[in-house]
Amino acid sequence: MRQAVHALSVRTERPGLHEITREVAAWVGQQNLRTGLLTLFCRHTSASLLIQENADPDVARDLEDWVAKMAPESRDYRHQDEGRDDMPAHLRSALTGVNLAIPLVEGRLALGTWQGIYLFEHRARPHRREVVLHLIGD
Amino acid sequence: MRQAVHALSVRTERPGLHEITREVAAWVGQQNLRTGLLTLFCRHTSASLLIQENADPDVARDLEDWVAKMAPESRDYRHQDEGRDDMPAHLRSALTGVNLAIPLVEGRLALGTWQGIYLFEHRARPHRREVVLHLIGD
Amino acid sequence: MRQAVHALSVRTERPGLHEITREVAAWVGQQNLRTGLLTLFCRHTSASLLIQENADPDVARDLEDWVAKMAPESRDYRHQDEGRDDMPAHLRSALTGVNLAIPLVEGRLALGTWQGIYLFEHRARPHRREVVLHLIGD
Repeated sequence: MRQAVHALSVRTERPGLHEITREVAAWVGQQNLRTGLLTLFCRHTSASLLIQENADPDVARDLEDWVAKMAPESRDYRHQDEGRDDMPAHLRSALTGVNLAIPLVEGRLALGTWQGIYLFEHRARPHRREVVLHLIGD
Repeated sequence: MRQAVHALSVRTERPGLHEITREVAAWVGQQNLRTGLLTLFCRHTSASLLIQENADPDVARDLEDWVAKMAPESRDYRHQDEGRDDMPAHLRSALTGVNLAIPLVEGRLALGTWQGIYLFEHRARPHRREVVLHLIGD
Repeated sequence: MRQAVHALSVRTERPGLHEITREVAAWVGQQNLRTGLLTLFCRHTSASLLIQENADPDVARDLEDWVAKMAPESRDYRHQDEGRDDMPAHLRSALTGVNLAIPLVEGRLALGTWQGIYLFEHRARPHRREVVLHLIGD
């Protein structure tokens, strides 16, 4: 049994869903494990992680609109330090969460046919986001 | 230290919460581990996983109604490929998520007295859903 | 490779976010592992776990208000066994979830600079909550 850890850096140029399935699967593949558990952890409170359909791009757009409606911008928040998109970003991050766990089976992530891994950027301005990948198995 | 993996198949005849605690606990019990970590992963983007109270069935009904209100059917979604229940199913899946992690302590899942494990079906028609179980421990 | 398990007991005197970062990090530190995976599991269906900003206390207040608005008290719920705050507590617990996973890297939890770990109490009256900590690594 062994472990591997990696800090994946993701550039976000705009708010919304950024697919990272390919980068994650590539790193996992390099570790040459057959059975295991992959954990993803987003080190931020204004971006989050999500598994969603990656076939039709309309799903991502509808999902972004829905999250924006669930946690809208508003002048009513106490916390406004970094502008109008500051507090909604924290709420949207709480909504989908900052960690994921995906089993590794027969050398491959157990993602379903239509499942993709996404970093969800909730701030308006471009950011560099860090996602820690932890893999354990044999 | 060792690992075990299993693909649990769940038939859903209707939308809503389907308890899978018994099936999950039975498989875990067969692995004969004393301390460990169980990960559950739903390989779909229109069904999800949830831990909730399993004492009063009214809790499940109220929860289903609430999720339906949070992510309602609507003609406004761009993505309508598989009908009116298609995009709401993706949103409801994002709301509760597709993975769970439960420690194994002294040979038993560390669930609280009233906690049950549920597959949450979000599509109207019957489906066969696959939940991958990964257990690591000794 | 080895494992450690601990039941963290948290007294909640009021509803809302209770930071447990210090207690969790202290226990993890005592296990003397360098690389690993920490899993937190809340053994209740009316309290939950969340990672959020711990710099400005206003973030916690805004988050509490938002969750209260998303899953409000109402006479319409079927399940009212333990009072007006009973069913909303279950919904709020479903919203943020009862488990977290945080990698351990170079002997420290991989939390970002502003990230804190919170127990989210959803019942009005004081409770003693149990959070199971599971650590695996070497």
